[in-house]
Amino acid sequence: LNFASDNVTGASAEVLAAIVKANAGTEDSYGADAASARLTEVASRLFGCELAILPVTTGTAANALALSALVPPFGAVYCHETAHVMTDECGAPEFFSGGAKLLALPAPHGKLAPQQLTDAVAFARANGVHHVQPAAVTLSQATEWGTVYTQDEIGRLASTAHRLGLKVHMDGARFANAVARLGCTPAAATWQSGVDVLSLGATKNGALAAEAVVLFDRSLAAELEFRRKRSGHLWSKMRFLSAQLVAYLESDLWLRNARQSNAMAARLADGLATIATARVVEVVEANEVFVALPARVATALRAAGFSFLDWLAPAGASAPVFRLVTSYDTRPADVDSLLTAVRDAA
Amino acid sequence: LNFASDNVTGASAEVLAAIVKANAGTEDSYGADAASARLTEVASRLFGCELAILPVTTGTAANALALSALVPPFGAVYCHETAHVMTDECGAPEFFSGGAKLLALPAPHGKLAPQQLTDAVAFARANGVHHVQPAAVTLSQATEWGTVYTQDEIGRLASTAHRLGLKVHMDGARFANAVARLGCTPAAATWQSGVDVLSLGATKNGALAAEAVVLFDRSLAAELEFRRKRSGHLWSKMRFLSAQLVAYLESDLWLRNARQSNAMAARLADGLATIATARVVEVVEANEVFVALPARVATALRAAGFSFLDWLAPAGASAPVFRLVTSYDTRPADVDSLLTAVRDAA
Amino acid sequence: LNFASDNVTGASAEVLAAIVKANAGTEDSYGADAASARLTEVASRLFGCELAILPVTTGTAANALALSALVPPFGAVYCHETAHVMTDECGAPEFFSGGAKLLALPAPHGKLAPQQLTDAVAFARANGVHHVQPAAVTLSQATEWGTVYTQDEIGRLASTAHRLGLKVHMDGARFANAVARLGCTPAAATWQSGVDVLSLGATKNGALAAEAVVLFDRSLAAELEFRRKRSGHLWSKMRFLSAQLVAYLESDLWLRNARQSNAMAARLADGLATIATARVVEVVEANEVFVALPARVATALRAAGFSFLDWLAPAGASAPVFRLVTSYDTRPADVDSLLTAVRDAA
Amino acid sequence: LNFASDNVTGASAEVLAAIVKANAGTEDSYGADAASARLTEVASRLFGCELAILPVTTGTAANALALSALVPPFGAVYCHETAHVMTDECGAPEFFSGGAKLLALPAPHGKLAPQQLTDAVAFARANGVHHVQPAAVTLSQATEWGTVYTQDEIGRLASTAHRLGLKVHMDGARFANAVARLGCTPAAATWQSGVDVLSLGATKNGALAAEAVVLFDRSLAAELEFRRKRSGHLWSKMRFLSAQLVAYLESDLWLRNARQSNAMAARLADGLATIATARVVEVVEANEVFVALPARVATALRAAGFSFLDWLAPAGASAPVFRLVTSYDTRPADVDSLLTAVRDAA
Repeated sequence: LNFASDNVTGASAEVLAAIVKANAGTEDSYGADAASARLTEVASRLFGCELAILPVTTGTAANALALSALVPPFGAVYCHETAHVMTDECGAPEFFSGGAKLLALPAPHGKLAPQQLTDAVAFARANGVHHVQPAAVTLSQATEWGTVYTQDEIGRLASTAHRLGLKVHMDGARFANAVARLGCTPAAATWQSGVDVLSLGATKNGALAAEAVVLFDRSLAAELEFRRKRSGHLWSKMRFLSAQLVAYLESDLWLRNARQSNAMAARLADGLATIATARVVEVVEANEVFVALPARVATALRAAGFSFLDWLAPAGASAPVFRLVTSYDTRPADVDSLLTAVRDAA
Repeated sequence: LNFASDNVTGASAEVLAAIVKANAGTEDSYGADAASARLTEVASRLFGCELAILPVTTGTAANALALSALVPPFGAVYCHETAHVMTDECGAPEFFSGGAKLLALPAPHGKLAPQQLTDAVAFARANGVHHVQPAAVTLSQATEWGTVYTQDEIGRLASTAHRLGLKVHMDGARFANAVARLGCTPAAATWQSGVDVLSLGATKNGALAAEAVVLFDRSLAAELEFRRKRSGHLWSKMRFLSAQLVAYLESDLWLRNARQSNAMAARLADGLATIATARVVEVVEANEVFVALPARVATALRAAGFSFLDWLAPAGASAPVFRLVTSYDTRPADVDSLLTAVRDAA
Repeated sequence: LNFASDNVTGASAEVLAAIVKANAGTEDSYGADAASARLTEVASRLFGCELAILPVTTGTAANALALSALVPPFGAVYCHETAHVMTDECGAPEFFSGGAKLLALPAPHGKLAPQQLTDAVAFARANGVHHVQPAAVTLSQATEWGTVYTQDEIGRLASTAHRLGLKVHMDGARFANAVARLGCTPAAATWQSGVDVLSLGATKNGALAAEAVVLFDRSLAAELEFRRKRSGHLWSKMRFLSAQLVAYLESDLWLRNARQSNAMAARLADGLATIATARVVEVVEANEVFVALPARVATALRAAGFSFLDWLAPAGASAPVFRLVTSYDTRPADVDSLLTAVRDAA
Repeated sequence: LNFASDNVTGASAEVLAAIVKANAGTEDSYGADAASARLTEVASRLFGCELAILPVTTGTAANALALSALVPPFGAVYCHETAHVMTDECGAPEFFSGGAKLLALPAPHGKLAPQQLTDAVAFARANGVHHVQPAAVTLSQATEWGTVYTQDEIGRLASTAHRLGLKVHMDGARFANAVARLGCTPAAATWQSGVDVLSLGATKNGALAAEAVVLFDRSLAAELEFRRKRSGHLWSKMRFLSAQLVAYLESDLWLRNARQSNAMAARLADGLATIATARVVEVVEANEVFVALPARVATALRAAGFSFLDWLAPAGASAPVFRLVTSYDTRPADVDSLLTAVRDAA
């Protein structure tokens, strides 16, 4: 059983069916197709506003494109020190932005606090032209530690950012899991709380390979279309990308899948809480569980066929920490079988 | 009927089936899956050599990544003035390479000649550090004018390039059409003739969205893996990209599809040759036909539902020129119906 | 005697004296010094308008910085095929702009014509997002062929450019020579004729190492200050850069020097016109003379101690072409001695 | 009196004299002059090895060029969190390297420790292609906190770095101050201790505007010459840049100046140590003194005409911290007058 990531699963049946259906007939290329037009409608309805949505292949592309439209090459992007853009995208934001600088801030629970922005920007302004120019903040929702910013937390961070002249980007690789947790509308989770641009993830939650840059300020779209093309992310047969997102968003698939993976993570965390040798080290609010386990337990689990990742333990941790990720197709029996194995190994 | 491009069609049934089949079960992500391993085997067998193959989403990505591995940021890439990398990729090669310069050379039939490289490099060397450093040549096969370099032409161009210290890149967006025309092996069409890196196209010829950088010098692979990741082109569910290419390459699908589109272009050109008002302005060796037609004929055809592109007429052309592209699923009846419409309009 | 370039001479006495004078006492760094403040005043008075002026070290830096403020990374810059930015700056504009593309246009006498812009932009617009976005035109004044755009020529080119949505950059590495030729005000030669940004050269005409980006639209200055810093072109002891330009511009030094070098080039051209074996191949309007000479004459001259450059002969030239450049400190006797040597060798 | 920085002073008389002397006659441009040839000789003798030395205008340019030759665009550069490249160069290293990432490490006294490299590289390697590739470490000598790495510290850091596959860059903006402190040879302070590339500063210590990239591995020189040109840092009248460095290095000027500024900083620190309200917060080993002072004292000093910078206080500091920098032309009386003012204000 594979708890290594939510990207080890395939695609939801609805998404595959949409691809097969989209295959019929000829369609104009590069986005001038029916599915792409439909996607804008569906997304606008879902978010309750006019917007521009640019589908791309990967979350790295979505994040890097989004940031490149928000910051100049001499700009600073503030992010959490564990942010995917900081540690796991091989410098994609620097590449797409022409050299902008990501400045990493430490903070508990994977969540930036408004005061951190205020301090960082004050330092930058004091250095004037010698320092990169404060330009944007990016927050991951859900965070890299599987936690979820509350609406209030987003709102306060975004209003501080805007007051400081920063744009607000949300890395929503697990946006559906966050919304499922928050129980609010997608609008409330984003633009109504001050988010300027959203990287909307779908691949980890049921798509085959589909993410999107969602622009609540449509004036950025023209520039981003050029940037998407020159980064090789404009599909010629765009219908196959848009169709995935339509299937994902137009019914409740995105939310249904996210609720399932969140529920399975909660079940897993609840179960681990009853096992003495296991210690869940971070609150579980989405579909990731971070657990400290004796090394011999981890070894035994892997020998038994369970996959999961080593994680960087917080300073002062007494046992190694591992990440367990549930997916839209994780079943209760999968979780229970992992729990049994932990108990047996412990 | 849509003759605008070979990317207005969907995917071949075999490719779709491969995607559906790849969906079963969990697979490690980012290329550590069975289909990706299989792809390297299939491609190595097809090209008759050890190689590295990196699948990506678009031809623009394949070309730009390939060139970025061959040239420094201060390098010069020589290309035909009509090359896709020069006119249709929104500066992707400049972006991926960190600012390398594409130097456009004019030449008949879309084909560069060895002497042009010799002259251009001599000019560069005379300017030393003031000029961008000669680094690579890229040739399109088939060319943007629907012609095909012969093996001998490739060989002479590549050996001149190598003598001058240039690497040789082949933009094979329509590689299958070229090989179908040449009737040689993929090996003879590439590394045996001096090609260092190939952008292998599949999307225009039956894939959903799948291209690949093929490295005949595997030592470049490590660097390219980082470059692919940071450009957002490393799929997490890579199996869906690799599976398309396996289906495309492991049977004769690639060649079968290309033969069909080539045959349809030949049929179209033959038919047009019998119509007085039409004049085919370039030799037809792959799946594109460039034809001069009176403007009123073009208008009538479009009114009748035929799609095709305006093209930049060669200097001195007396009538506007249009591009007609056939596809792997173009049928004889489609061609004949277009021919009839031309005759009727003329 | 060195006719290779106008950069083989040292600096004018006035410029050196200004440097020595600027050395006294402490001054705040990075431009917050008295000479830098004075420079803005002097330049504003000279150009008859409010402006921002950013001194830098080299013409390459001035050009690349200027263009980077005018075009996006996915932009196109139209230039003459012989432009310094195209052939002699090792890709600096591509580097500073983050990958923008210079599109080279051929034209007689080194001068672009308005229709070329219209055609090129039409081609770009027809290709939409696939082509780099038309963004700017750059013209060299004086040109690389030693000719000078008339005020009318600049005006028509600039108004066409603006109508097409392009910004207008002037590479004024030899701006003083051009103004000396035109006999108009610096204002008439630039912003009054539609120039948006000027690279103002001084090094070739008497400075030690000093050029400047002159912004007639001051709103670009804030961005350019960051760009100058991150490209390493913000001197800490900026007084030494500004002081050169003040000395150069505040009296008539710039114009006096340019008149001298122009006059010497005219004297040289006139003399060559009387020698049968020499043929001046381009009109002489500034301080450069392009002359076709039998190879044995060139060899003899070099053996006699004269330095000058080989030049790319225009197509169809029957003899090799050489470039002879005069400088602010070239004396009539220098010219006459060269002419004598030509006569002797011929 | 200006203690804000060592760049508020002018140039040493010897340097100015060298510039004036270099002005005589014509010289080939772009480095083919006598002073540039002489510089390589002088530097080779000083460092006791064959090397390549590329003069540039600013320390930012030297650092960014040096790093761009050591790391790929997808590379990681490890540096201290206070490093000039991290906080004060407006992203120049990211720009020159094409987007490489500077990863900031905290450490006492401004000095990196070998274990930090080991840990950081282990984290990177565990993330494979998703993380930027470990490529180089840069250390500032003297550090941003005015401390000096011992030879042993450099040696251990460099040998760890090399073992991990990292190149070693030294930002020697205040290299002379460090060598003056260490009392060792320039060779021992650099290549003999494992430094691969040195940014050799001169501007802060008596030059007008002159720094250099010193390559102990000359094979990097060819690439760097292209990079210098395309970043606009190749002077046409290079003699004026090289002549400064020759004057600086060929006699003991560099060391004499550094000893003077170091001595003045020591005198200042000693004096402050006797004043109850002042607290020197970092050991003084070069020409910078960091002192905690009551805010009212700082205000009084500034009112009395003393200039100096606010500094970011270490966590837990009870009073604001200020930076006082001495220069090669600071005299004992200057220091004493500052000390008297502090005593009076306290």
